[in-house]
Amino acid sequence: MPGNSLGERFRITTFGESHGKGVGVVIDGLPAGLPISEDDIYFELQFRRPGRFLVSGRRETDQPIILSGVFEGRTTGAPLTIYIENKDIMSQFYEEIRYKPRPGHADLPYILKYGFKNWDYRGGGRASARETAARVAAGAVAKKLLMLHNVLIAGYLKSLGPIEVKEPITIEEAICSRNSPTRAPRKDIEELYEKEILEVTKEGDSLGGVVEAFIANTPIGLGEPVFDKFKADLAKAMLSIPAAIGFEYGLGFYGAKLKGSEANDEIVYENNRYRWKYNKAGGILGGLTNGENVIFRVAFKPTSSIRKPQYTVDLRTNERTTISVIGRHDPAVVIRGVSVVEAMAAIVAVDHALRAGIIPSVRLSKDQADKIEENWERYKKLC
Amino acid sequence: MPGNSLGERFRITTFGESHGKGVGVVIDGLPAGLPISEDDIYFELQFRRPGRFLVSGRRETDQPIILSGVFEGRTTGAPLTIYIENKDIMSQFYEEIRYKPRPGHADLPYILKYGFKNWDYRGGGRASARETAARVAAGAVAKKLLMLHNVLIAGYLKSLGPIEVKEPITIEEAICSRNSPTRAPRKDIEELYEKEILEVTKEGDSLGGVVEAFIANTPIGLGEPVFDKFKADLAKAMLSIPAAIGFEYGLGFYGAKLKGSEANDEIVYENNRYRWKYNKAGGILGGLTNGENVIFRVAFKPTSSIRKPQYTVDLRTNERTTISVIGRHDPAVVIRGVSVVEAMAAIVAVDHALRAGIIPSVRLSKDQADKIEENWERYKKLC
Amino acid sequence: MPGNSLGERFRITTFGESHGKGVGVVIDGLPAGLPISEDDIYFELQFRRPGRFLVSGRRETDQPIILSGVFEGRTTGAPLTIYIENKDIMSQFYEEIRYKPRPGHADLPYILKYGFKNWDYRGGGRASARETAARVAAGAVAKKLLMLHNVLIAGYLKSLGPIEVKEPITIEEAICSRNSPTRAPRKDIEELYEKEILEVTKEGDSLGGVVEAFIANTPIGLGEPVFDKFKADLAKAMLSIPAAIGFEYGLGFYGAKLKGSEANDEIVYENNRYRWKYNKAGGILGGLTNGENVIFRVAFKPTSSIRKPQYTVDLRTNERTTISVIGRHDPAVVIRGVSVVEAMAAIVAVDHALRAGIIPSVRLSKDQADKIEENWERYKKLC
Amino acid sequence: MPGNSLGERFRITTFGESHGKGVGVVIDGLPAGLPISEDDIYFELQFRRPGRFLVSGRRETDQPIILSGVFEGRTTGAPLTIYIENKDIMSQFYEEIRYKPRPGHADLPYILKYGFKNWDYRGGGRASARETAARVAAGAVAKKLLMLHNVLIAGYLKSLGPIEVKEPITIEEAICSRNSPTRAPRKDIEELYEKEILEVTKEGDSLGGVVEAFIANTPIGLGEPVFDKFKADLAKAMLSIPAAIGFEYGLGFYGAKLKGSEANDEIVYENNRYRWKYNKAGGILGGLTNGENVIFRVAFKPTSSIRKPQYTVDLRTNERTTISVIGRHDPAVVIRGVSVVEAMAAIVAVDHALRAGIIPSVRLSKDQADKIEENWERYKKLC
Repeated sequence: MPGNSLGERFRITTFGESHGKGVGVVIDGLPAGLPISEDDIYFELQFRRPGRFLVSGRRETDQPIILSGVFEGRTTGAPLTIYIENKDIMSQFYEEIRYKPRPGHADLPYILKYGFKNWDYRGGGRASARETAARVAAGAVAKKLLMLHNVLIAGYLKSLGPIEVKEPITIEEAICSRNSPTRAPRKDIEELYEKEILEVTKEGDSLGGVVEAFIANTPIGLGEPVFDKFKADLAKAMLSIPAAIGFEYGLGFYGAKLKGSEANDEIVYENNRYRWKYNKAGGILGGLTNGENVIFRVAFKPTSSIRKPQYTVDLRTNERTTISVIGRHDPAVVIRGVSVVEAMAAIVAVDHALRAGIIPSVRLSKDQADKIEENWERYKKLC
Repeated sequence: MPGNSLGERFRITTFGESHGKGVGVVIDGLPAGLPISEDDIYFELQFRRPGRFLVSGRRETDQPIILSGVFEGRTTGAPLTIYIENKDIMSQFYEEIRYKPRPGHADLPYILKYGFKNWDYRGGGRASARETAARVAAGAVAKKLLMLHNVLIAGYLKSLGPIEVKEPITIEEAICSRNSPTRAPRKDIEELYEKEILEVTKEGDSLGGVVEAFIANTPIGLGEPVFDKFKADLAKAMLSIPAAIGFEYGLGFYGAKLKGSEANDEIVYENNRYRWKYNKAGGILGGLTNGENVIFRVAFKPTSSIRKPQYTVDLRTNERTTISVIGRHDPAVVIRGVSVVEAMAAIVAVDHALRAGIIPSVRLSKDQADKIEENWERYKKLC
Repeated sequence: MPGNSLGERFRITTFGESHGKGVGVVIDGLPAGLPISEDDIYFELQFRRPGRFLVSGRRETDQPIILSGVFEGRTTGAPLTIYIENKDIMSQFYEEIRYKPRPGHADLPYILKYGFKNWDYRGGGRASARETAARVAAGAVAKKLLMLHNVLIAGYLKSLGPIEVKEPITIEEAICSRNSPTRAPRKDIEELYEKEILEVTKEGDSLGGVVEAFIANTPIGLGEPVFDKFKADLAKAMLSIPAAIGFEYGLGFYGAKLKGSEANDEIVYENNRYRWKYNKAGGILGGLTNGENVIFRVAFKPTSSIRKPQYTVDLRTNERTTISVIGRHDPAVVIRGVSVVEAMAAIVAVDHALRAGIIPSVRLSKDQADKIEENWERYKKLC
Repeated sequence: MPGNSLGERFRITTFGESHGKGVGVVIDGLPAGLPISEDDIYFELQFRRPGRFLVSGRRETDQPIILSGVFEGRTTGAPLTIYIENKDIMSQFYEEIRYKPRPGHADLPYILKYGFKNWDYRGGGRASARETAARVAAGAVAKKLLMLHNVLIAGYLKSLGPIEVKEPITIEEAICSRNSPTRAPRKDIEELYEKEILEVTKEGDSLGGVVEAFIANTPIGLGEPVFDKFKADLAKAMLSIPAAIGFEYGLGFYGAKLKGSEANDEIVYENNRYRWKYNKAGGILGGLTNGENVIFRVAFKPTSSIRKPQYTVDLRTNERTTISVIGRHDPAVVIRGVSVVEAMAAIVAVDHALRAGIIPSVRLSKDQADKIEENWERYKKLC
């Protein structure tokens, strides 16, 4: 299969470019009977929307339109298509980059692969972060379907440039970070993040950062040995996000410095189920979820489009030149990356829940649909 | 598709258990005309073989048998099956773990998912690292096919427990680490590694570590937006390896601390091609290979099977108990992990080369086959 | 993968319902550089359009809109999305069928599978032949891309109810049948077909028929043993069409009555290539195209929605009742089936040409694009 | 994915050549807990075995060996590998065909696709019907798993050359045809078939024929719109069989001659379920199984390897020559085709049952396993 689809049973196919007519996603594999509305999808989209404080100046309403797959408010089992029009396009910013590929950006690799004349340079075309709106839309559907088991998925900004949250963060704090313009998990950190961003914006520069995310109330046994382990599919989903350059779960790179006796975790039996005492495994053991919270981190590089002049090559002459990327860019893509990380985690989790038969693949009963609605309402009201 | 296959055009399906009849792999998608022999496959298998100094005491000859797909020394386009018999099996070591799941191991998640009675506990069954022999066998075929473009793939042990190689290592040094029992890139480091292992073995404990690996002479444009980016498929392949708990490429987690002006890389035009001055992107930009060396790192947790007694639960009573895992286990699975990382990288690279049409999908010409043989001979003689 | 996608390298995903907002298709796997326009797509859509003489009274302009994947008139390598709005909807016709499933129709199986409340009964919802507009749109793109090798694909109506064309038809006649409202290959047959349709329409009944189709100038070696044989993928594509109930190629069911010496075909060497003297194999041998014209037939059942009263069950009471389906229905779906058969054949052929590397998977050169345009213009002017 | 795998959730990958070491299949996607033995597999293999009366003189014991995936008699959820050694090989028969491609055979297309030197000509290599032993082995596993719903699958020889069974055959008669050397459904037909075969054998010629097969006790709702309809996947599976040249279900090609009022079928409500009065749809409506018996037919061409001299080309000179294929060949491959048709139908049915969640994808309970064993024992004792 070509590369614009993901998932075995919950299968998303995204389409659209930054400055084309719009972006969208087709979701195939949904059971019939899931109550879903454009408002449900918008609920998640609002948290990644450009135009929020401190992110890109582009102002998209990001109003999702359901083109297919829903009848009288419920899914029918047919493909669900969500479409988001591009409205606030200012392509004039991009004429310069047509000939001056931006350092750190997809521009030149796309040109080398697909040919200069076939490259939709306007706003980065297909390689633009705009495409992630389609992922977040699909993620909203995934999150809602996961409400069948009350699975909660949330991320927050664990570090921004040199500033790092050292203390442990709860999943509740992570969920509530959706109300913070920097996805900071706490007020004091929010202040530090904002100050850092203002500073770097003044310099015409940008920042990287790390997202930490949780999957709570995870069903046991998600993942399929030996290649579609939960950790493997999660890693792929995360690294498929623009600007993501690292993934780890549980102890991660730190765990590589430990001894077995330190990294292993005692198994205990409590309240009629097996537990892992300190969840050192980050919820995944043998590639399968073990019922503990899945905890993972994704490293994002700094936004590559910066105002600060940088050296590059003029493709017309192959001579050295400088570029100062104006356009409207996030000072730190990692901030909106939090929403995308959550969406991709939901997509992987729901796909494996369908594969394992924990969510029915054909249709939901009325009771199941009702339970989903209830849990979803509660989730929306959190924070 | 269920989880035991990987790859779109170079498709591997592994099978077999630790203490069953054997392990093997079916490779589908090979062009006809590739010269391949059991010796070629063995060449790579020898570097991951148990029984080498400092790794598991299990002594497998790991002699691969080609069951199908080769005629008069060349592939026919039909599935190539490689089978490796299990010979040195001592299942008696494993009776105890049937009821006492090992902390840090796949035992309990497998039992919870597949059912106690269906769990092949002998040596970890399907979850055993023995399965990676099949991956390395497939990787040998992938590596050889990549010789069409003289692509070189090599890893080494960048860190072992607290010991870390700080200075940059060349791909030549990485290749030659295959002669080191600890996959150390240099003699002085080898000594440090061996000392550390002996110490930890004495304690009945184990060590984690980090593999760094390179793909050199990488064709430009491997990877398919937006989900099958090269970085995404590489991440999945790496995290599918038992004990792998983190992946990063290029600047990785360190890059998340930088500013855009620091993380971006100047594009230059040299010798009729575009280059990235410092290869800060680790060879992947916009999810596509850019022609620079691909550089990435994989974190491995310490071997979870250790002699040192650990608390766990007795499944018959659900009471706390202790287990001291005897069996024959590597003090640091990360050492043999180097071979597996190389194999998985080769499998991903060749898959994307086929997808991009850079390697013909139907058959190789005689010239192409000859070039492959030549480059392969040279590769075998390195070091 | 769920069921709404088809193809390995030319991957189509259709979406939309009969009486929803519209229908559409996402095509993933197109090389960059293919010149394509909404007019190109419309060129093919016009031949299946409802509202032509003797087919459904529904009048859709079927104007395709390209939502993504094209930049300055050429594909970019990103997913190409084509969307066709539903305009002429009269859902009031369908209230009755909500409770009275039509005999011979998908109604009841959909209800039994997805649940009564999740069934979009308006016009048959997802099961409506309206979905095939998306297939024909994708088929237009496939047909155009196949112009790289001047592959010609055309079908015609070989039989309608009891009337059957016995004499051999040429591919040129098949192509020109696109100008006949009944897809008749010749004027005299057209008259017979029309008379038959008028008669059956008067009775409130409908007709079945057989489409015969050709793929000419077929590249040698399309198809992948042993499951993705060309004949196998063709069969699947054809049987995926609503109302299709049989497929055969070459001698087909007639060949099953023959002896080997009658069914085998002499191989000859002519004009520097191998030929099969009488093309008894219908262009496919060993599951691979052999360079001769691919010839196959698809049987369609009569339109199941008929005015004539039929017995069915009232779902509210489970009592016997009668239904007289009014709505606007083709007297013989097989007529528009010809366009769909062509489209599906093109989709299968282009998919296998991409798999075989005969069409480049990443991008077309300018020369290749020019050749495609030329051949396409010639193709449009035929007849 | 390359072409040697089939199925979404019950995924088979076959390997091996006619005159190589052996043939085999890896089955991925089996739930844990299925009781399966080599005897179970052999039970089905015996019915396709060469060496039975009136089929190829080749005498293979066809003893299957389970290489992986079974522990203490039950599946573990890991890939199940079945291997069948080639024993009775007489490759000397085949030297001649290396240069004289057999009319009607895969020889020349394989050479043209994969290259003369990469073509395993011995016994047809990968294109040999020997590969179907692996399908029947996988089919045995599928059949057994389907016993969870007591699904019965059986075919018989409906026509052989000019002789055709006109009267309706029951599924019981079809099952018992496994005891007939010609898969005749009744004694009187058996005599006719045998006489015909002896005659044609004397002439050094061969016969085609039609297999009719049933799937009884079919769960409702198998199939996934719009491409993976049950009829579509069934068609693909059937046309993937060597020598298969046509497929139809229900009324098939005959139905194309009817009117809607004749082809439609009354829906009735009986014994608390909906039924179709005459099962004119052959058990599939809207692409979904409707709970009635699935009935379909597959046309096979005559064995292409015949003793009777035929014209072909000598590849060394490209001159006309004759070939008289000696080797050991079935006078009518369609006879053994019955077993293969059954196996492929079982594979498609079990795949869709898994996709629909009607068979659990992770593990079977003890009760489910017991029910399977019971039904299997009863099935084996039929006839």
